[in-house]
Amino acid sequence: MILSEMEAERIRGASWLARKGAEAYVLLSELLEGDELKAAVEELRERLPAINRTMASLYNLARFIPITGDPELVRVKAEEFIRLGDEARIEIGNIGSELIDENEVIITHSFSSAVLEILRAAKKKGKTFRVILTESAPDYEGIALAGELERLEISFEVITDAQLGISAKNATLALVGADNITQDGAVVNKAGTYPLALACHDSGVPFYVAAESFKLHPKLKGGEVEIVERPYTRQGFRVRNRLFDVTPWRYVRGIITEFGVLIPPKEI
Amino acid sequence: MILSEMEAERIRGASWLARKGAEAYVLLSELLEGDELKAAVEELRERLPAINRTMASLYNLARFIPITGDPELVRVKAEEFIRLGDEARIEIGNIGSELIDENEVIITHSFSSAVLEILRAAKKKGKTFRVILTESAPDYEGIALAGELERLEISFEVITDAQLGISAKNATLALVGADNITQDGAVVNKAGTYPLALACHDSGVPFYVAAESFKLHPKLKGGEVEIVERPYTRQGFRVRNRLFDVTPWRYVRGIITEFGVLIPPKEI
Repeated sequence: MILSEMEAERIRGASWLARKGAEAYVLLSELLEGDELKAAVEELRERLPAINRTMASLYNLARFIPITGDPELVRVKAEEFIRLGDEARIEIGNIGSELIDENEVIITHSFSSAVLEILRAAKKKGKTFRVILTESAPDYEGIALAGELERLEISFEVITDAQLGISAKNATLALVGADNITQDGAVVNKAGTYPLALACHDSGVPFYVAAESFKLHPKLKGGEVEIVERPYTRQGFRVRNRLFDVTPWRYVRGIITEFGVLIPPKEI
Repeated sequence: MILSEMEAERIRGASWLARKGAEAYVLLSELLEGDELKAAVEELRERLPAINRTMASLYNLARFIPITGDPELVRVKAEEFIRLGDEARIEIGNIGSELIDENEVIITHSFSSAVLEILRAAKKKGKTFRVILTESAPDYEGIALAGELERLEISFEVITDAQLGISAKNATLALVGADNITQDGAVVNKAGTYPLALACHDSGVPFYVAAESFKLHPKLKGGEVEIVERPYTRQGFRVRNRLFDVTPWRYVRGIITEFGVLIPPKEI
């Protein structure tokens, strides 16, 4: 079942999970109808966000699909969600790539498909730039991103997560993704994003977040975010592994969405 | 030869290396004398700091030993360096453990023998506290520290390096070691120390550095520090690995030495 595939996924982020979730609705609309479908859609409204409570995209997807027994309606709305997401990512690429100047040195952390789209668009526009990226232990999403950058012939340098601070000093722009942007503007993203934002702030490097609008959470506040954990064992010792951290809006220069760049409404 | 053992060492830090270096002088004093010894001591004054140019301890040790052909003088000075280092560590334990209050939650990064001495002294004084420590990829010095804490029956939690920011919020005190404290008060320590200091600053957690006085560099400024690199390969990609970063003094509450706690001379 798609839900268990989503639960097992370790590398890909909120955009991929949201898309998979929407595909689950399409599948449902092909298998069920009437009361059975309605019950299944109702169940998904609870189960989908529970796959990863940190991610706003799953919460917003579950609310996007009406609770109905009409297969056609479920399918149309699910496909609309996928299409809007694809269009959003492309538009974020267009908008975000305008922020990249010649010879920019861009630092990023973990693997964000929105950030990748920006880099791809900038490359396509013929811009010259370099990327510094973390390997992102313990699942090494950064190595997956390195593979994508290599295919795109974008020059890059992989660093350990602990070099976020020293490398921010060598960067001229920071671009990261998000799993959730709370109602009060806090950015929830892969753990390490918050210290990167602090280091960029300390060195005067503008720090931008790229996120489709379905990652904006309509209700949640920064202090209420539930952080998913995935502990593991290293040389016999249990290692705590909270996947995300929370960056307050005051360290964010802007949030690049498909509608434009959101900036803080006031000094906070 | 001791020098190659020192060059190969990956886990242990500046204190251990300085001690090993002093042992090299003792050995020399047993093997050589006269002009041969004098030439060897003169050579070591260059070669010893070159083992790790980031570390002030090697620089200070090389200057501590007079260039002489008298084996007795070389041995006495080398042994004095070792003894002063041992006494310093114990005194740092005494002084630093006074900073630990009941139920303190202490965050640290990498493995510092001076920090371990403080924790050992605090435990001996019957204090109750908990330690949060990073695993410190890629060489996992943190796991080595976890083993020491387990033996001392000090309760602890190991985190990934990327959780430095989120975990600083849960701490009440930060304690790290140093490989070099520059003439202008910048703290050179394992990469990741600087973002930890920023996160502590952002959350109001006092950030202390424990260092024997032989880690104070008499000449070097923060901007001049040469950072040793040790790149490695992960899944076919080269990972840059600068071992250290530089934390400006303005983020440091105090430096715990065997002479007392040094504080910044003014707001900088």
